[in-house]
Amino acid sequence: MAVPHHLEHLINPKFKSAFVDSYGFTEDEYALLLSYFDLKYVKKKEFYARAGIVCKHKTYLNKGCMRNFTIDEQGHERVLFFHFEDWWVGDFDSFYSGKPSVCNFQALEDCEILEITQKDFNYLKTRIPKLNIWLADKHTKKAIANSQKMVEIKTLSLEERYERLLCQEPEVVNRIPLQYIASYLNVEPQSLSRVRKNIQCKKK
Amino acid sequence: MAVPHHLEHLINPKFKSAFVDSYGFTEDEYALLLSYFDLKYVKKKEFYARAGIVCKHKTYLNKGCMRNFTIDEQGHERVLFFHFEDWWVGDFDSFYSGKPSVCNFQALEDCEILEITQKDFNYLKTRIPKLNIWLADKHTKKAIANSQKMVEIKTLSLEERYERLLCQEPEVVNRIPLQYIASYLNVEPQSLSRVRKNIQCKKK
Repeated sequence: MAVPHHLEHLINPKFKSAFVDSYGFTEDEYALLLSYFDLKYVKKKEFYARAGIVCKHKTYLNKGCMRNFTIDEQGHERVLFFHFEDWWVGDFDSFYSGKPSVCNFQALEDCEILEITQKDFNYLKTRIPKLNIWLADKHTKKAIANSQKMVEIKTLSLEERYERLLCQEPEVVNRIPLQYIASYLNVEPQSLSRVRKNIQCKKK
Repeated sequence: MAVPHHLEHLINPKFKSAFVDSYGFTEDEYALLLSYFDLKYVKKKEFYARAGIVCKHKTYLNKGCMRNFTIDEQGHERVLFFHFEDWWVGDFDSFYSGKPSVCNFQALEDCEILEITQKDFNYLKTRIPKLNIWLADKHTKKAIANSQKMVEIKTLSLEERYERLLCQEPEVVNRIPLQYIASYLNVEPQSLSRVRKNIQCKKK
């Protein structure tokens, strides 16, 4: 069921802007695109997607935030990314390969998502060729972002990575519980608490 | 200067196949594409590209192998990737953003490369629209590969990562000096030697 007209005002204005302003979609093309999305709700702590299941949707995070984590060989949760409003979420590899997902997506706040099936998305690419250009640019940006994260992991100390979060991704520090930030940085929560105290001392 | 006709037999057959077999380029389109590439040589130990310089080429590694490394805040070299025949090399972020590259590319064997300027590549995209589809697919695969590497870094032990290299990327183990593999795995060479000995003992 598509997003009903009386709920359209709930959609993040950045969603429309990404297609209409940045890629020149006409109003008709945007309306066609939107008609294939469903608006859904994921409550805080609930899982939107789980490892082991094939990812068959493209999903826009309209509101809220999620953590994307995987389980390591010892059974520990490892946070890979945090996702906020105006991000696309889902296991990218699984979506394109059809293999089971390795990622879990859990809501850390009450979330609203816009979801489209793979089949509908592929159909829309044939109806709106501009969607292919949008997609190619998205993938380029994703590949770059992942490369940058890898460089960070390989070259920065814990303190440097935390300082970078503070400067460049303050919503992580402001909205995400400490234990998940520690998991994202691959350290124990105690080590992260120590780093936070050091940084506060430096500022004084 | 384009690849001269008398050197065309040197080009890796996978290069042509990628465009003609996988993306339906006609012989004329392939000939047009190839006419914009230069064939160049990079001797063992020489640098093909250095950090601090903007990456302005798309570069196909026709023969040989390279290491892609960055320098961390303490001045240590950190290997991000190894590249072999039939890979595209270059600092992706720099190529698209115009910012100085953070990666260094050093030949670990005598290399042959096929190089095209950004300007020529962009021109060719207008002449051969199929090139956009090839590019979008390349970026999708790169984003997936980078995501998988991040999951590996975050979830596997040193021993598991080395075993995965042995199974999935044996050319790394067979062709790359130990100290660079250790840098890629973020450990001291002595730790890697120990892991290799353990794995050999297990197999006996």
